[in-house]
Amino acid sequence: MPRIALGVSYAGQAYLGWQSQLGGNTIQDKLEAALAAFCGLPKGERVITNCAGRTDAGVHGLMQVVHFDTTFERDTNSWVRGTNRYLPPDIAVQWARDMPAEFHSRGSAIARRYAYVLLESPVRPSLEQHRAGWVHYPLSLSNMELAAQVLLGENDFSSFRAAQCQALSPVKTMQRITIHKRGAYWRFEFEANAFLHHMIRNIMGCLVTIGQGQQPPEWMAEVLAARNRAVAAPTFSPNGLYFLGPVYEAHWGLPDTAPAYDWLP
Amino acid sequence: MPRIALGVSYAGQAYLGWQSQLGGNTIQDKLEAALAAFCGLPKGERVITNCAGRTDAGVHGLMQVVHFDTTFERDTNSWVRGTNRYLPPDIAVQWARDMPAEFHSRGSAIARRYAYVLLESPVRPSLEQHRAGWVHYPLSLSNMELAAQVLLGENDFSSFRAAQCQALSPVKTMQRITIHKRGAYWRFEFEANAFLHHMIRNIMGCLVTIGQGQQPPEWMAEVLAARNRAVAAPTFSPNGLYFLGPVYEAHWGLPDTAPAYDWLP
Repeated sequence: MPRIALGVSYAGQAYLGWQSQLGGNTIQDKLEAALAAFCGLPKGERVITNCAGRTDAGVHGLMQVVHFDTTFERDTNSWVRGTNRYLPPDIAVQWARDMPAEFHSRGSAIARRYAYVLLESPVRPSLEQHRAGWVHYPLSLSNMELAAQVLLGENDFSSFRAAQCQALSPVKTMQRITIHKRGAYWRFEFEANAFLHHMIRNIMGCLVTIGQGQQPPEWMAEVLAARNRAVAAPTFSPNGLYFLGPVYEAHWGLPDTAPAYDWLP
Repeated sequence: MPRIALGVSYAGQAYLGWQSQLGGNTIQDKLEAALAAFCGLPKGERVITNCAGRTDAGVHGLMQVVHFDTTFERDTNSWVRGTNRYLPPDIAVQWARDMPAEFHSRGSAIARRYAYVLLESPVRPSLEQHRAGWVHYPLSLSNMELAAQVLLGENDFSSFRAAQCQALSPVKTMQRITIHKRGAYWRFEFEANAFLHHMIRNIMGCLVTIGQGQQPPEWMAEVLAARNRAVAAPTFSPNGLYFLGPVYEAHWGLPDTAPAYDWLP
C-alpha cells in the first residue's frame, strides 16, 4: 500500500497535544479526521498516522512530519490542498511526498529540533499570549550557557523526565543547545537524537532558575547526576515551545524540515 | 486633575476594534473597565480614555498610547501592574507616565506608524492565523515599490477611505512606505501624520493587486487621482495589520514608542 509523508504545522494552544484522545481534541485527531474526509472514508473509519515527535498540550509545531499508508491515489499537491480544506485554521499541511515502505516518520528520524521562545519583561505577554514563555527578571546568558554545556553529549536524562514518559531508555544524546537574545525575546534551540517526555520544559525550568541566579551554573551537573526528577526545577510553561521538526538523511529526498522561525512568536 | 498616559499592547483578533461599543467587547471597554476596577470606582462609573489611533476589529496594537484624567494617585509602576491585574491576557499596559494637561494622546501625536505582515505561500497560515495576511501568488517587490512611491507626500486619499470615515479631511501626508521580505513573510511599514479609516487595508489591497501583476504599477496613480473609493481594490484583511504606535516630540519625555517588531507575527 503506498506510503505518504506530510509536513504539518500547527498552533498548539487550542489542543490537548498531538496524540489522539477519546475527546478528539488533539492535533492527530483533527488531522486524521481531515484525511478521512478527503479520502471519502465511511463514518467511523480512520486514516492512522504516525508522527516524528509527539508534542504536549499547548506546544506548537513548525514542521511535524507524519506518515500513513493509503490506497487512495492523489498527486501530492492534492493531498496538501484537499486535507487543508478539512483542517481547522490553526493546522495546515505544508507538503506531501510519496515515500517507500521503509520510511517511518519516527523511526527514520535521526534527530529532532525544538525552540523555546521566552519573553524577558517586567510586563506579562499580551500579543505573545500562548506563543512565548515569560520571565520578569533578567537572565544571565553566560550562566545559562555554562549550565547548558553540561547537558551536551550522551547522558541519562532521568532528572528531566516526566513520570508518565513511555521512552524505553532515559539515555539520549544532546547534540546542540544554543541560546541567544534579540530585543526582549530569548531563543533557546535544542537538538538531540530524541527527547523524553517534558524533557525540554524541565531543562528550561533549570536554565531559568540558573539564569535568574537562584542556583549557580554548577547546579545543572548536580541535577543531571542525580537522575531524579525531584531535584530539578518545576516543569516550565509549554507556551513558548515549538517543535521545529525532525532531521532525516538526505537520501529520503524530503523537503527541508528546518523552517525559518526568526519571525516567532 | 492629574493626567496619566499609558502605553498599551494588544492582540486584536478577539475584539471589535479599539473604540467602545455597547456590547463592551472592544479594547477600550476592557481597558476602561480595568482602570475602573483598579481605581475602585463604584459600579457604572467609567475612566474615560483617549487614544492615539483607533484600530479596527482584528487589528493588533504594539504601542497604542492613551491618556486619561484621574484624582486617583498612584506611582507609575502601580498603574502598570494594577491595571494589568484586571485586563484580559491579550491586552497589557507596558508603561505609565504622569503628563501635563497640555498633552493629548491623539492631538500631540505628530505621526503614526503601522506595519502589515503578509505570508506569501501556496499554503494558508496556521500558526500565523489572525497574525498575518496571506497571498498564495508571488509578489513583485519592484512593482510594489514603484506603486508605493506615488503615495508619498501630501495627497487626497479619498480613494482609500472607508465610507464611515469620520476624519475632517481626506488630505494626509504619507512620510514613508518601506517594503521588504524575509523568508516567506513580507513586511510593509507605513508612516503618515494621520490615517483615514481603512486607509492602510485599502492601500494594501492595491499593492497586492499590483504585486501579483493584475494591474501595472502606474495603476496606483490612477487610483489616487480618482479620489473615488470605487476604483481601488477591495479592503485587505485586518489580520496582518499592527499599529506600531504614535510619534511624539521628544520634549514630552515619553518612552520609546517604536517597539521592535521583527519577531512578528
